[in-house]
Amino acid sequence: MNDLYVVGIGPGAYEKMTLEAIRVLENCQTIVGYTVYIDLIRDHFPDKTYITTPMRQEEARCRMALEKAASGCPTALICSGDSGVYGMAGLVLELLPGYPKVRVKVIPGVTAALAGGALLGAPLAHDLAIISLSDLLTPMEKIRAKLEAVAAADLVICLYNPSSKKRKDHLKMACTIVLGCRHKDTVCGIVKNIGRKGQELKILTLEALAEMETDMFTTVFIGNSQTKKIGPYMVTPRGYTVAPHTR
Amino acid sequence: MNDLYVVGIGPGAYEKMTLEAIRVLENCQTIVGYTVYIDLIRDHFPDKTYITTPMRQEEARCRMALEKAASGCPTALICSGDSGVYGMAGLVLELLPGYPKVRVKVIPGVTAALAGGALLGAPLAHDLAIISLSDLLTPMEKIRAKLEAVAAADLVICLYNPSSKKRKDHLKMACTIVLGCRHKDTVCGIVKNIGRKGQELKILTLEALAEMETDMFTTVFIGNSQTKKIGPYMVTPRGYTVAPHTR
Repeated sequence: MNDLYVVGIGPGAYEKMTLEAIRVLENCQTIVGYTVYIDLIRDHFPDKTYITTPMRQEEARCRMALEKAASGCPTALICSGDSGVYGMAGLVLELLPGYPKVRVKVIPGVTAALAGGALLGAPLAHDLAIISLSDLLTPMEKIRAKLEAVAAADLVICLYNPSSKKRKDHLKMACTIVLGCRHKDTVCGIVKNIGRKGQELKILTLEALAEMETDMFTTVFIGNSQTKKIGPYMVTPRGYTVAPHTR
Repeated sequence: MNDLYVVGIGPGAYEKMTLEAIRVLENCQTIVGYTVYIDLIRDHFPDKTYITTPMRQEEARCRMALEKAASGCPTALICSGDSGVYGMAGLVLELLPGYPKVRVKVIPGVTAALAGGALLGAPLAHDLAIISLSDLLTPMEKIRAKLEAVAAADLVICLYNPSSKKRKDHLKMACTIVLGCRHKDTVCGIVKNIGRKGQELKILTLEALAEMETDMFTTVFIGNSQTKKIGPYMVTPRGYTVAPHTR
């Protein structure tokens, strides 16, 4: 059997990779990935064969990696953040039955919710939902229904892909839904370019978040009814005591 | 200012720590943590001063770490998994205003949802919720309401603390709620002792999950309507196409 490793490289900085991910990449001759993510690691792993594909070529990228592994070459397919959370591991495993000589190993990594959360403080210290606002593969009505459900049930919400050039108003839509059942002063946070050049973070109210312009490299955090701002930090307590923002 | 690092060490295996976490622990003289987690890392970081506290002494543990840092000693407080997701970062930041000489740095890590998900395949490749079934700090009615909301909205559900000696029936209660709006054949998975001695994993139906006995070192995954079993893997597709398990 030939191994294909699907590797979560974390948010981008070398030191935020796990030791396991580093060792796997050191041992693979071929590394496949989206151009932007390859550029984040290339300097740390010289003398590799890099195969890059542009955005939205996910299936082609997975097939290239599977074919390279099937040919007997130790291969890694890299994903930013975790390999599972909106990563390539699912698609690779869906395609795997067509490659009987390949065995897949999924290597987890620090997804943006965790890396961004650590920069903001501790927004995710209680029950949470991660929802992508991208409607490329999920109907918008389903995204709306998910937002309504988790907002009403008081989960901390972390939004991936809050907007893009084509979807400028998705974050506003999401905030409007959450404002239907959370106070306008709910503590929120945004982190841009986590662990990379141009890193920015901001703690703001839900009302102010609704007016923010973001991009696809931004991760958004919406606190629950208990989330507080303590100095420069966004902090969600571990349980329920008093409710500073109840309606 | 004196730094206190709140460090997520991942599921337990040394190689699943981030390089950043390893470097921080190497540079700290004092490492504070719950006995079980200290034992996971002790051999890799010799010549440290270790301060261990038993379970449920979370506030005492955080205060010890804050006091040690305030005294000028480079100190790390470790958490299993991530430092933020049900970790100690929140409690430390809540206590921080009492320690004006201390600056806190939160170091993220691979939480059980990601580490366990990688072992099962790719259960978390679409929108997900992480919910703890521990009712020590959260009223059971709130936990039930969260489960009902995310079950109805078709999020993949990852359950932490599915049961303990005192709470043997919590997992069954959770499955019964989810069975109210998901098919009994929904693909589920459980992972026990992730990355540690005694690691076990199993893929099973929601109906079978309801009858399982678990413990506090088990992480539970409940698929959404699209989640499939592909060979030995639990895989959630990246979007919505057909619905294999709709009611």
